[in-house]
Amino acid sequence: MSVLVVGSVALDTIETPFGSAQNALGGSATYISAAASYFTAPIRVVGVVGGDFPKAGIDFLESRGIDLDGLEIVAQGKTFHWAGKYHYDLNNRDTLRTELNVFEKFDPKIPDKYKKSRFVCLGNIDPVLQRRVLEQIEKPQLVICDTMNFWIEGKNAELRQTLKSIDVIVLNDSEARLLSREPNLIKAARVIRGMGPKIVIIKKGEHGAMLITEQTIFTAPAYPMENIFDPTGAGDAFAGGFVGWLGRTGDLSEENLKRAVIYGSAMASFCVEQFSIDGLRDLTYLQVQDRFRAFRELSRFDGD
Amino acid sequence: MSVLVVGSVALDTIETPFGSAQNALGGSATYISAAASYFTAPIRVVGVVGGDFPKAGIDFLESRGIDLDGLEIVAQGKTFHWAGKYHYDLNNRDTLRTELNVFEKFDPKIPDKYKKSRFVCLGNIDPVLQRRVLEQIEKPQLVICDTMNFWIEGKNAELRQTLKSIDVIVLNDSEARLLSREPNLIKAARVIRGMGPKIVIIKKGEHGAMLITEQTIFTAPAYPMENIFDPTGAGDAFAGGFVGWLGRTGDLSEENLKRAVIYGSAMASFCVEQFSIDGLRDLTYLQVQDRFRAFRELSRFDGD
Repeated sequence: MSVLVVGSVALDTIETPFGSAQNALGGSATYISAAASYFTAPIRVVGVVGGDFPKAGIDFLESRGIDLDGLEIVAQGKTFHWAGKYHYDLNNRDTLRTELNVFEKFDPKIPDKYKKSRFVCLGNIDPVLQRRVLEQIEKPQLVICDTMNFWIEGKNAELRQTLKSIDVIVLNDSEARLLSREPNLIKAARVIRGMGPKIVIIKKGEHGAMLITEQTIFTAPAYPMENIFDPTGAGDAFAGGFVGWLGRTGDLSEENLKRAVIYGSAMASFCVEQFSIDGLRDLTYLQVQDRFRAFRELSRFDGD
Repeated sequence: MSVLVVGSVALDTIETPFGSAQNALGGSATYISAAASYFTAPIRVVGVVGGDFPKAGIDFLESRGIDLDGLEIVAQGKTFHWAGKYHYDLNNRDTLRTELNVFEKFDPKIPDKYKKSRFVCLGNIDPVLQRRVLEQIEKPQLVICDTMNFWIEGKNAELRQTLKSIDVIVLNDSEARLLSREPNLIKAARVIRGMGPKIVIIKKGEHGAMLITEQTIFTAPAYPMENIFDPTGAGDAFAGGFVGWLGRTGDLSEENLKRAVIYGSAMASFCVEQFSIDGLRDLTYLQVQDRFRAFRELSRFDGD
């Protein structure tokens, strides 16, 4: 089924203890759409880049079958650029530079042919823009939304307004605590559900992820990795795998939401195994299924 | 099968945001043996208390069928006393007072009738004493050992010597990182396995636990709790449930080790639901099984 992805398309400069890259393909919409493209089609992207955006970036996304008709190219502008540095434990990063460039005036315009998209995944952008997207589309089957500390602290009222129209929120543990003002994550999820999203997914990095609905608490393990090469995009890859699986199956049952969380975790694990988006470039669906099964092996036990 | 537990038997003064208790029954051997007593018999305790140790404490342990012939009572001495305070998030605690009292000269003497115990669980005591226990017993089927930062930092060489004779080490994530000098827990477990214990269990509090053997990585979820009443003894209750299940079944297969980790997690979850050891006082085996099934519900997903 159709998946609409709205978010940043960026060029990243990344330093990790294992290497560095300049102007690597990045941005939330890039990671989300690349991860989702392993599951379903069409994947449609709405975003904006500058005239400096490399043809190789376009070629990669198109090679994944992603529809870029909604990607605005401002020929005289520069692409959003993020520069960050990860420390040895890879859990903390410093943002060295954020150059919004053409993204500063980003005003998402949804092409007519995108307006009936069944699944909508709103990357981590200004909650006002997230709402403007929702105003332009016909009632989709499911709206998924990411956010971050910057919006929770800086645009709290706007974010709260947006959350009323969201079905699934995906956020990390510190964001969940900040948004809910609750240290206990189970309570935090309950508070956030009260803000609108009936499905809350809390990502906990090396500790996996939790899915919380009215009926269910589901815990997904993290894929055990001795070496995380580059954590950039892991959260977006998670969202992409999650929405991609739901788009593939069209099944919103609790059992299938759990599977979607595992597919999201699988795509995040592929993402961090390589630099930038390289871990999402050349997978086969068989590899994705094998990783799904590895997650089951990791958490399965029998007996009563 | 027989389980020998060696560790502290203490009186605790505990403050949490939800209440406080003075001279509550505590100590690693107390929690381990109480938790294990729900699974198998005989459970045998070696420890020491003073003349001030309340009859109610003895009565409780005996009511759980625990053999206390190895519990030395120094009539003119005082029982080991620990006082601690938990903060609002319950992840951090301050030790307010540690009065070793009779525990200062604790020299574990294993009664002859305990020497053929099949399972040995060494609570968090001086690694020299842990080794002295092992020297007194005949080759048991499995030796489980807990430790803490205090010994990792203060008696590292002695601890390393002890670890050579250990089958299973149970420690928390910060202890695993400290012992291995590795921030990545998967690598940390590998380093620790190189020190002797072929089975490493890393407890991660609200993030569950990991079992790492040569072949297997298994992740157990934490039981989702909105209110943790008192974290004291959770790690010992885990060890007790783990060794208790292995003692009940006598099965050291990887599949059964996974179940033992879940039973350990279950006993830890009961422990923290109430003050001091109260959560381990009046369970039924049916409740324990129900909690085991709740853990399965929490992490189970199907599909391929």
